[in-house]
Amino acid sequence: MTLDQRWFTEAIETTGTAFSLMGEKIHEEQTPYQKIAIWKTQTFGYLMTIDGCTMVSTRDNFLYHEMMAHPALNSHPHPETVVIIGGGDCGTLREVLKHPEVKSATQVEIDERVTRLAEQYFPELCEKNNDPRATLFFGDGIQWMKNAAPDSIDLVIIDSTDPVGPAEGLFGKRFYTDCLRALRPDGMLIQQSESPLLHLELIRAMHTAMREAGFAQTHLLHFPQPIYPSGWWSASLACKKAGALTPRLDAQAIAALDTRYYNADTHRAAFALPTYVRAALAD
Amino acid sequence: MTLDQRWFTEAIETTGTAFSLMGEKIHEEQTPYQKIAIWKTQTFGYLMTIDGCTMVSTRDNFLYHEMMAHPALNSHPHPETVVIIGGGDCGTLREVLKHPEVKSATQVEIDERVTRLAEQYFPELCEKNNDPRATLFFGDGIQWMKNAAPDSIDLVIIDSTDPVGPAEGLFGKRFYTDCLRALRPDGMLIQQSESPLLHLELIRAMHTAMREAGFAQTHLLHFPQPIYPSGWWSASLACKKAGALTPRLDAQAIAALDTRYYNADTHRAAFALPTYVRAALAD
Repeated sequence: MTLDQRWFTEAIETTGTAFSLMGEKIHEEQTPYQKIAIWKTQTFGYLMTIDGCTMVSTRDNFLYHEMMAHPALNSHPHPETVVIIGGGDCGTLREVLKHPEVKSATQVEIDERVTRLAEQYFPELCEKNNDPRATLFFGDGIQWMKNAAPDSIDLVIIDSTDPVGPAEGLFGKRFYTDCLRALRPDGMLIQQSESPLLHLELIRAMHTAMREAGFAQTHLLHFPQPIYPSGWWSASLACKKAGALTPRLDAQAIAALDTRYYNADTHRAAFALPTYVRAALAD
Repeated sequence: MTLDQRWFTEAIETTGTAFSLMGEKIHEEQTPYQKIAIWKTQTFGYLMTIDGCTMVSTRDNFLYHEMMAHPALNSHPHPETVVIIGGGDCGTLREVLKHPEVKSATQVEIDERVTRLAEQYFPELCEKNNDPRATLFFGDGIQWMKNAAPDSIDLVIIDSTDPVGPAEGLFGKRFYTDCLRALRPDGMLIQQSESPLLHLELIRAMHTAMREAGFAQTHLLHFPQPIYPSGWWSASLACKKAGALTPRLDAQAIAALDTRYYNADTHRAAFALPTYVRAALAD
């Protein structure tokens, strides 16, 4: 069948897949960086798209934001200083600030309009923007990281768009090297790394680049994300120091995070790799 | 954007979602039960659709078929007699027959044309159809189960289409009662149970009906399935007898299954429920 104007569609010719949500476009603007649109959907609440790609929906963003924040924060022994590169919808920032151990969380988003539109259409994601521990900085994440003081950050979360356009430089050895330098000895970096079905080669290349940059080890975690291509998404975690990843939080601390997807069981489950993924990442 | 004739699209107005694969339709027929079509896609191999809904693709069917077969077979203490209701593409049958403990596997598919088309377009799924332990029966699964000898089956796998049309009767207490009667004391039933995001109420109702039919306990497991709505799918496992589910197979036995998604880690991960799902199923 053909979809009429009642649907938003993200069609990707390279993967041969498309995903659509029924709804109407209620806002569109061209910023210096990209074209942002807001859709009011029938069943997923509001939807933000950037250059035609789904970014965040009211209904299912909890999956992505929880899994970009909590597995890494729960694996780090003392995550006090967190930097988010991208993440302009502020949903990752909100999850990060649920952790009382975090003393400072800086969000470095290149496009202030993403955040302003999130404040308007996704206010629930922005409810921690005025937390005294939060800093919202609008500028280039690559440049910001080049200038970051060495040995000053515990966790870098790279919550970016796909590795084309403004975000391309966030997926390479040079940027990872700058992150590594800015991280403290126990430091970790976690980055969204696309679909385990559609983008396995990209994931392999990211892990190789992370290790070439000097990270001691890399891990993959995966989770459902219905509005993203294939509905199955991943994040890649790189550790400055070698050693087993041990969850730090007890059941009470996890319950206090007030999450909808994340818990002690789904934490472990996210790191359980399918056999073909394990084989692809074993070098 | 609008998708042109180069795309197959499954649009579901009730969920407000659509999924598309680029490709061309190479076969279509109306059987006494349903309209079956075969598409040759750009990136997912062949795709079978029934009444416009995606059923099976060459590229990603391993996720579904492995997870419909192995978690249940690995949880049952001695799965010798297996009955598959539906499953006409034979992919579940193939996975079941990888287990040397299985002495007999009967596939009860209402529409023989599904199997004949699978033999033509998905021959890899049909490679165990001539195994001496396999029986391919074409007929109504509901009637078959009514007539099944009591206390004769170890595992029932309900690998059906959605709970509308011919498969509707497979999602209710009456059918579950017939299954329970046919199962041996250690018997289990596993059934595909749609998306944990889109169909949580259906999942709740299924678990309630299973317990009302007399099953001692029910479990949910979940896994990615990109061509199905939301890309995230589930199966519900009902046990005649109460007790902890303990995986029976050792690492060597699991490796011998030659799976691409399933392993000891993803077995456990599949049963790790998101917090909101756990809450919905806790009564």
